[in-house]
Amino acid sequence: MPSGLITLTTDFGQADHFAGVMKGVILGIAPRARIVDISHEVAPYNVTDASFVIAQAWRYFPRGTIHVVVVDPGVGSSRRPLLAQAGGHFFVAPDNGVLSTIYEASPHKVRAITNSKLMRKEISRTFHGRDVFAPAAAHLASGVAPGRFGKPIRDYVRSWSIKPLRLGEQVWRGTILKTDGFGNLITNFQIDEFAGIKIRPFELRAGAARIRRLAVNYAETEIGEVFVIAGSSGYVEIAANQASAASRIGCIAGTAIELELF
Amino acid sequence: MPSGLITLTTDFGQADHFAGVMKGVILGIAPRARIVDISHEVAPYNVTDASFVIAQAWRYFPRGTIHVVVVDPGVGSSRRPLLAQAGGHFFVAPDNGVLSTIYEASPHKVRAITNSKLMRKEISRTFHGRDVFAPAAAHLASGVAPGRFGKPIRDYVRSWSIKPLRLGEQVWRGTILKTDGFGNLITNFQIDEFAGIKIRPFELRAGAARIRRLAVNYAETEIGEVFVIAGSSGYVEIAANQASAASRIGCIAGTAIELELF
Amino acid sequence: MPSGLITLTTDFGQADHFAGVMKGVILGIAPRARIVDISHEVAPYNVTDASFVIAQAWRYFPRGTIHVVVVDPGVGSSRRPLLAQAGGHFFVAPDNGVLSTIYEASPHKVRAITNSKLMRKEISRTFHGRDVFAPAAAHLASGVAPGRFGKPIRDYVRSWSIKPLRLGEQVWRGTILKTDGFGNLITNFQIDEFAGIKIRPFELRAGAARIRRLAVNYAETEIGEVFVIAGSSGYVEIAANQASAASRIGCIAGTAIELELF
Repeated sequence: MPSGLITLTTDFGQADHFAGVMKGVILGIAPRARIVDISHEVAPYNVTDASFVIAQAWRYFPRGTIHVVVVDPGVGSSRRPLLAQAGGHFFVAPDNGVLSTIYEASPHKVRAITNSKLMRKEISRTFHGRDVFAPAAAHLASGVAPGRFGKPIRDYVRSWSIKPLRLGEQVWRGTILKTDGFGNLITNFQIDEFAGIKIRPFELRAGAARIRRLAVNYAETEIGEVFVIAGSSGYVEIAANQASAASRIGCIAGTAIELELF
Repeated sequence: MPSGLITLTTDFGQADHFAGVMKGVILGIAPRARIVDISHEVAPYNVTDASFVIAQAWRYFPRGTIHVVVVDPGVGSSRRPLLAQAGGHFFVAPDNGVLSTIYEASPHKVRAITNSKLMRKEISRTFHGRDVFAPAAAHLASGVAPGRFGKPIRDYVRSWSIKPLRLGEQVWRGTILKTDGFGNLITNFQIDEFAGIKIRPFELRAGAARIRRLAVNYAETEIGEVFVIAGSSGYVEIAANQASAASRIGCIAGTAIELELF
Repeated sequence: MPSGLITLTTDFGQADHFAGVMKGVILGIAPRARIVDISHEVAPYNVTDASFVIAQAWRYFPRGTIHVVVVDPGVGSSRRPLLAQAGGHFFVAPDNGVLSTIYEASPHKVRAITNSKLMRKEISRTFHGRDVFAPAAAHLASGVAPGRFGKPIRDYVRSWSIKPLRLGEQVWRGTILKTDGFGNLITNFQIDEFAGIKIRPFELRAGAARIRRLAVNYAETEIGEVFVIAGSSGYVEIAANQASAASRIGCIAGTAIELELF
């Protein structure tokens, strides 16, 4: 059952009226909805970044939460709006792969939103956050059944999963998924799968850096030191004590990296 | 009737305590008020920018919403605080023209807020958002009648409307109203008035660029291409596919532009 | 008595999922809690900046408000999580001195949070905002008595107060506490203690500037002019009319300054 709790994840920034307008539309339809911003500072047009942000956040909200994700370079084209259900949560987003991390994490059901009665009367070509996604979330929060939004589909867009590639017996090629606001580099090495680094010597090669230290926490390292840590994201992260690891070693999202266990 | 819904539009930024303090003051007076941020990133001291942001946002909120707009370079001087009513909404703002777009859009009634019982006891010289505007909005949300705030006035500050100027039979001089966070340039050509561009050849001259393409949506254009689009704002916008039109053509808010229909 | 109102002050920024995740955790435990952001843009790792922001904000919220302050370079080390009570408010924060301004302002009682039942089951090494502080605030908002979180302590970390130093009969050495988003420089000269500047000639020396003007408000000064004003913070501030005083005179937080009364 959808609750009255709605989260927003967009690339609209916070200087303009866009996010505020979505909230106005939601509260006009569902006056008792509660709205929580996850981020409006997703890298512009960056579907992968948005996918990472929502993947990190959704499961910490109560079941029934409705998550609206609008990073939508294809707005106004024929790409479909979606309503997805997964893990007891609801997701409203464009069909551009932004929900791939959700599909990967849980069994899911996806509908194309086609019922124009659940949209604003006039649909602009450039702001479906206001005209399509906010109204859908609000109607859902008000108790409209998921089935009324549109039919289940199977051909939704889904990025392939970005898992590390095995290069040799104990060597993997990976990538930087994301640089967070502190300059930490989040890799695609899941801690559970690469738990070996906790007990064996290793080398993580990223840019010019060859990192051999796994720290348990920031405080045990020197200020400015670059090290590897089991991040709160569930991934191996490259961090620097009170400094930006990204600046120190000159890597960004998308940079290829290599992990070797000894 | 004012509802318990209060929006905030300011140039306070989000790093400092200012916006948070306004919310604390509101919730101290009206514990059940619901507060929605429209923007705290209005260009500093820029009354025109704030006027544009609130103009774009207010009508998407439910009737009875109270909109607080604080961009206030004259704070502490004799400029008056205002309570305006228009279109079934309420506006609390300094008398510096920031509500001009509201006055233009709807019949309206404007009062000078003079009742010091509805302000904080001590009024600082620099932070009327906290001492005057937040308390006014909160008291209004709590049911204090508009008439108790002060008397209606007619000599409130009102900027002239920034409409395009006709230069020739089919040529108009216009301006860039605003650059949004994506780098889209919003012109002062209202789509309804210049619907000709949808059916006739045209040229929009902005900086070094001469734009002849009207796109229906972003997806039909090339990445990086600069084009004209009927924006969600109701104005003709200059946009670039997954890029900043502002950077591409080197224009900013205030740049003069020209539109010619053929 | 703690109310259901929770404020957040962090250095997490707003691009990442961190602040949103804290809200999800809070609402999962305390569905009726109301959450207000004070700032997520505290200077990274800057305990002093966070301490200033919360000092400026807390007393404008209603009694019973729960303030969560997470600027936490020692996360994952043995530094303790705290629950403090002061002035009828509640504070949840790491024991790193970030609450020093609160201790200074009011009689207070401080507990070390040790009850792991009031934390998330798995505690990461890097994100106690999610795993320790958000749950503590939420349980407090739900009615768990402060005594259940842990025992009172007396050896909590407390920075010495940054008061101006007297250099001569009428000369004091002070410092810039903070640059706000407008570029105003907030000094550590409290207005009440240095009220002399309102009635006597003075000189404030900051960087290359020697400021002799106290303005009552911004509007009475020239655009771009640098002057001293009795700020809304309760401190003497160096400001510039519609410009950044910080840029004009080249000072930042931490810069030493001198005040002389004549």
